[in-house]
Amino acid sequence: MLYGAIEAGGTKFVCAVLDEKANILEKTIIDTLNPDYTMGKTVEFFRNYDIVSLGIGTFGPVNIDPESPEYGTILNTPKLNWRNFNLIKYIKSDINVPIIIDTDVNAAALSEYKMGAGKGKKSVLYITIGTGVGAGFVSEGKTLKGLTHPEMGHILIRKMEGDDFEGVCPSHGNCFEGLVSGPAIEKRCGKKAQFLPENHEVWGYIADYIGQALMTYTLVLSPEIILIGGGVSQQEHIFPMIREAFKKHMNGYVQHRVLDGDLSQYIRYPENGQMAGLYGAYQLALQAHEDSNK
Amino acid sequence: MLYGAIEAGGTKFVCAVLDEKANILEKTIIDTLNPDYTMGKTVEFFRNYDIVSLGIGTFGPVNIDPESPEYGTILNTPKLNWRNFNLIKYIKSDINVPIIIDTDVNAAALSEYKMGAGKGKKSVLYITIGTGVGAGFVSEGKTLKGLTHPEMGHILIRKMEGDDFEGVCPSHGNCFEGLVSGPAIEKRCGKKAQFLPENHEVWGYIADYIGQALMTYTLVLSPEIILIGGGVSQQEHIFPMIREAFKKHMNGYVQHRVLDGDLSQYIRYPENGQMAGLYGAYQLALQAHEDSNK
Repeated sequence: MLYGAIEAGGTKFVCAVLDEKANILEKTIIDTLNPDYTMGKTVEFFRNYDIVSLGIGTFGPVNIDPESPEYGTILNTPKLNWRNFNLIKYIKSDINVPIIIDTDVNAAALSEYKMGAGKGKKSVLYITIGTGVGAGFVSEGKTLKGLTHPEMGHILIRKMEGDDFEGVCPSHGNCFEGLVSGPAIEKRCGKKAQFLPENHEVWGYIADYIGQALMTYTLVLSPEIILIGGGVSQQEHIFPMIREAFKKHMNGYVQHRVLDGDLSQYIRYPENGQMAGLYGAYQLALQAHEDSNK
Repeated sequence: MLYGAIEAGGTKFVCAVLDEKANILEKTIIDTLNPDYTMGKTVEFFRNYDIVSLGIGTFGPVNIDPESPEYGTILNTPKLNWRNFNLIKYIKSDINVPIIIDTDVNAAALSEYKMGAGKGKKSVLYITIGTGVGAGFVSEGKTLKGLTHPEMGHILIRKMEGDDFEGVCPSHGNCFEGLVSGPAIEKRCGKKAQFLPENHEVWGYIADYIGQALMTYTLVLSPEIILIGGGVSQQEHIFPMIREAFKKHMNGYVQHRVLDGDLSQYIRYPENGQMAGLYGAYQLALQAHEDSNK
């Protein structure tokens, strides 16, 4: 049995065909240009395989409510030619298989829950810190959806004393994303994060703000594990600093053995690495096929 | 069929017997003293009725994981004689019916979801602002649980310029609860909230901080409706101020028709009022009975 998976990102679409054992049989990468080009290539790719279902983890904002007539529609993205474009309808007009769509970060959280660092846990928070900041959450097998979908990257953070950086978020200035994203670090320091020395003072700020945000997510969602992916998280040296900031802010308030010690089992790297999104889309495809047989 | 419901609060236990139509047939109030007294009286009350199941919405922190051997145990509460006391085991040794226990705020959220302002919504956030600040969340019929349970009242808030109040939270000083709870208002102003005039400057701070917290909850959980109960929320005049603060901080980032306009349908009073907790316990009892018949 073959399943289709699409990781629909802002710069590229990764499309793959997988079997029941999560083996990737074929994979292609398509630039995210206009919908006609990118989706045309996408459909062309999948047309060659007899897939039974398809899963999509996409950039957003996007309508992920299966009961809505607009299910699968990209919403007010800055990518103007994708606004109001419906991914599901476009694909179904050509390849009529069951499709489930979710956010890229919900998909990544799902892959870690099903086949990564969250296996055996009841809930997983997956946060990506890179060009943007976003997070997905899975509890008891279900991704978190609601009025729209979570936009956890934009929570307000308390700035450290002495930090007068005004942030880069067009909507909130110095919200979490506005302070810790790749572009924020670049604007603050005049060079990209990967070119900064490990002892640069900016890492103290970044680690504190990430620790604060994770404290908020723990207080609100109570996840069993927190996984951090994305470009900024490549800076391994900040993980102990993040865990320390988390502990400092939480100050022992939530008590659980997992929160004792150095937090190295609670705040961690994802296991599926760069594949988290694509594997998540694959998990959505498995779900779509299962649902269609009910 | 008769169902038992307990709203286990820090100052009193409200116990009731209800029928299938949520009619309260009998009700009693017991002071929260030591477990022997309070639980003795509780069991004595229910012994007179042939209840098929029991639901408990309780103060915390508490173990609400049905798969844990410590399910039903009160954890590190400041009420020392309740620490490590297991409510379920105590009751079951006398009245052996299926029992479900959850936090008081999760129970309240569930009652609003099933039979209140959240009826027909997919998810409900219920927040209480009074002596303490807590929130419960229900999505697709399930209350949010995790590593422990949410402790949403303790998220960090950004203080307004000019506000030098240090807060009253023993763990975090000026976290959300430390700034907006009843005791915080009393300490700041020298008198209880209900005796302050509507034009007191403190309400500007309180409304801003509540608006900030609700923005965070919306970004993290994306609830379809937010209900505010508890003593401080009796100050009706702050609701428009809270909605305005929410809009100011959110700055249009999450787009949905429910978030347009004056937010009077999004940020609201609970419908079950003072009964939210007890009705929530009743819903847990219905669930316990249903589960036992599976």
